[in-house]
Amino acid sequence: MGRALRAFAGVVGERWVLQDETDRDAYLDLYAPGDAALHAAAAAVAPANVEEVQALVRLANDYRVPLWPVSRGKNLGYGGAAPRVPGSVVLDLGRLNRILEVDPELGYCLLEPGVGFFDLYRHLDEHDIPLWMSVPGNAWGSVVGNALDRGIGHTAFGDHAARICGLEVVLPEGELLRTGMGGVAGSPNWNLFKHGFGPSWDAAFAQSNFGVVTKLGLWLAPAPQALTNLRLPLPNPEDIGWVVDVLRDLKMRGVVNQMLSISSYIGAATMRSQRHEWQDDPAPLAADAIAKMQRTFDVGWWNFTVQLSGHPEVNAIHARLVREAFAGRTEATFRETRWERGQPREKSGVGVPSVLALQMGNWHGGRGAHLGFSPVLPPTGRHALEQFRRTRARYEEYGSDYFGTFYLGDRHMLNVNMLMFDRDDAAMVRRTTGLFEVLIRDAAEKGYAEYRTHLDYMDAVADTFDFNQHAARRFNERVKDALDPNGILSPGKSGIWPRRFREAGFGTAVARKAQP
Amino acid sequence: MGRALRAFAGVVGERWVLQDETDRDAYLDLYAPGDAALHAAAAAVAPANVEEVQALVRLANDYRVPLWPVSRGKNLGYGGAAPRVPGSVVLDLGRLNRILEVDPELGYCLLEPGVGFFDLYRHLDEHDIPLWMSVPGNAWGSVVGNALDRGIGHTAFGDHAARICGLEVVLPEGELLRTGMGGVAGSPNWNLFKHGFGPSWDAAFAQSNFGVVTKLGLWLAPAPQALTNLRLPLPNPEDIGWVVDVLRDLKMRGVVNQMLSISSYIGAATMRSQRHEWQDDPAPLAADAIAKMQRTFDVGWWNFTVQLSGHPEVNAIHARLVREAFAGRTEATFRETRWERGQPREKSGVGVPSVLALQMGNWHGGRGAHLGFSPVLPPTGRHALEQFRRTRARYEEYGSDYFGTFYLGDRHMLNVNMLMFDRDDAAMVRRTTGLFEVLIRDAAEKGYAEYRTHLDYMDAVADTFDFNQHAARRFNERVKDALDPNGILSPGKSGIWPRRFREAGFGTAVARKAQP
Repeated sequence: MGRALRAFAGVVGERWVLQDETDRDAYLDLYAPGDAALHAAAAAVAPANVEEVQALVRLANDYRVPLWPVSRGKNLGYGGAAPRVPGSVVLDLGRLNRILEVDPELGYCLLEPGVGFFDLYRHLDEHDIPLWMSVPGNAWGSVVGNALDRGIGHTAFGDHAARICGLEVVLPEGELLRTGMGGVAGSPNWNLFKHGFGPSWDAAFAQSNFGVVTKLGLWLAPAPQALTNLRLPLPNPEDIGWVVDVLRDLKMRGVVNQMLSISSYIGAATMRSQRHEWQDDPAPLAADAIAKMQRTFDVGWWNFTVQLSGHPEVNAIHARLVREAFAGRTEATFRETRWERGQPREKSGVGVPSVLALQMGNWHGGRGAHLGFSPVLPPTGRHALEQFRRTRARYEEYGSDYFGTFYLGDRHMLNVNMLMFDRDDAAMVRRTTGLFEVLIRDAAEKGYAEYRTHLDYMDAVADTFDFNQHAARRFNERVKDALDPNGILSPGKSGIWPRRFREAGFGTAVARKAQP
Repeated sequence: MGRALRAFAGVVGERWVLQDETDRDAYLDLYAPGDAALHAAAAAVAPANVEEVQALVRLANDYRVPLWPVSRGKNLGYGGAAPRVPGSVVLDLGRLNRILEVDPELGYCLLEPGVGFFDLYRHLDEHDIPLWMSVPGNAWGSVVGNALDRGIGHTAFGDHAARICGLEVVLPEGELLRTGMGGVAGSPNWNLFKHGFGPSWDAAFAQSNFGVVTKLGLWLAPAPQALTNLRLPLPNPEDIGWVVDVLRDLKMRGVVNQMLSISSYIGAATMRSQRHEWQDDPAPLAADAIAKMQRTFDVGWWNFTVQLSGHPEVNAIHARLVREAFAGRTEATFRETRWERGQPREKSGVGVPSVLALQMGNWHGGRGAHLGFSPVLPPTGRHALEQFRRTRARYEEYGSDYFGTFYLGDRHMLNVNMLMFDRDDAAMVRRTTGLFEVLIRDAAEKGYAEYRTHLDYMDAVADTFDFNQHAARRFNERVKDALDPNGILSPGKSGIWPRRFREAGFGTAVARKAQP
């Protein structure tokens, strides 16, 4: 490792090989639910450009040193900047931070992985470019990293991975690939046409360990002419059933076209207060504490905001259709707000990055943290209600405060469950990880799998892909071995282990049994 | 080969190994621009189910027999049912023709490759399912095959490959894979969520030779409440410039959300007449012939129809916005027609399969045929106008009748150029293939590549992907070799040759030079 790091320094300069204790601590998982040392990096190396990435990857092959690329390393709740395998070297791409292109007319940008949501927002704002981003709840991270890890926002472009168009990738042996139309040198279509000619590859580089993405094309939404927001606070826990059916139907009819989120009451409280302000008893939150939170923050048990984006007259008709769809379903009433072009952008509430959601980490105090358990479900009221009941009961069984959000996508539903905990409270950490594990098993029994997970659970989630004796894993590993024969790139990411690690016993018992 | 075919018969029965001369002729490329014998199959074999597909693929490995899977083999203009390599055995999937699932509420279906557009249309109609397909111009083919080859239609779901969600694939050595959430046995999310966990693979099985797709999930559009069609016949050839900018802007603003096509005057004539009815002289069509065609069929030089789909009041506002966008741009006037739920479906003109476009093959008489040259371009007026001028001049230079259509997708433009010819006229065939080759070169100079091409040109189009000394080809072939070590599945498809064929000298000189 010492020799490898010296060789890395020959590429990037001593200054950009980060290997003292403070440096290494900076790459630990701040929200580790287990022992952070399980994912401690040996060092980090920060290249300045693609050529340096290629040189580092080649050296990593020479020295058989596992690299763990991160864009900005802000993947909180999923592992942050930390590698799956301790002793890996984090390949920190934060210095590749150029906004290479923004096309206002055709609605796309080409970014390096170090570009943050705030950087891109500022760029669009300062250059008066009429394109809007879709941002995740906590927007401190990388636009590229978020899209590759399939982050979500609340707009029509809220499925960020679905808006990727064209990648530049350093392959595990150092070769440079451009996907899709980028395969044609100088093509003007790289970030415009997703399919290319022959097999297309963008989606295979998401959540995978097949290459280091050094440039990413992303589609942006044209700034709308007007917005109409309809917020509805629903009073009852069981409202989550019928409301999913009503909203899905509105989406299928084209009245609503955004990624819709329906979030439980506690969300507002976690961003503006701590648990002890509501209840000292660690028992499940009592009805009066829940009611007080709802009054204080003016929220329902469930809350969602339909955002209609388009011509003001069209928005008005669609708003009427939304209200009609809810007529007679609830006593709750819509709160309507509007925005039109010319008004301050911040007031739109759309595509404006914020870090307010970070506050959630402070719910219990101490070294606060959270995990996200996020299975995919069919978008029906029946699935939502059963999932809610089952999951809430598990939260109570394990002494955790239920915090669920249901996202309605084009044809699917994501159920993001936040597990907030205090890393200084060992018993709470044990309860939290116990809860996480049982939630994986509960979901797997229904045939649900997670769309994204923390380092600690990548193997367990991959294990749930059991069709034909885990054919998906064998397929992933076969491609992995072909592209990365020395197994240097992100071993273990998404449960995909290169041959050398499999032979050394990494991965789960299920994985080993499934090998031919 | 004889032994292999006997082994195949052991799987599917003698009856489904098709090897006499008549059988073999049925799998020739009916529209071959070159010698059809260059793509003549040795035989065809037609399995009845997935298990038989697996058994055949395994036997093909044993006997090193190349298989060429086709869904229904109707890929006219791109090679039909014929294999790239003569002497291959066509794996005809037409008997796998079940509609396995249609979910009216969630808007998807799960299909086997033998299901045709007419089959699915009849199924939806007979069961009164309020979901509409997007159909290609000539809809005699397979829904699955069309989507995998990235066929296009005219609706909001007109990019058919973009609506694929979840595949079942027999891999080149016979193993069965389900992609995405299908990796979880019994998952209800297989055809609902595209990404899965870890790398996603659907797009890598499109236009590729990495596996035999035996089931495909496809999203269907909910039947609209109402439609407003606005047809505009534009009088001047050069109108193709500004009209692309106006329409793209309407699409970016969300006023129009369909895959829009703008087609030249000759389209209508090719479906309802033959060339000699307009002009005997083989020279370029004269102005009076062109004018007469336009009068006869009531079309402009360029023609498009905006189709607004949604609530009638919303359609009315959007229709006004469309008219406003064209105000002062042209003397031509919109022809408006409307459809509302309850009126006969056929009158909507949407998602109703037709084979009328087949008539185009008869333009010159004889054994009529066509080729499609289809580069991808940025969707701007400047690109459209330059592409039109350059391409039309080439058509005239090579004595062919210009027939171009520009499709506006989400962020790209496809320019489908039809080259109609008579296979019995050797000189015309030579001119046509000469034209095709020069069009590939012209496009490549601009950095454009084709989205799809005929068997004869797969290598030439793959050659245009030259970034980093053809890194895309090396990447494709590396994956190919890992998945298909014996090189039995569709060798040469999309210019991807398995190792054994590369070593035997298949592929172009460019391809050989690009190998490391």
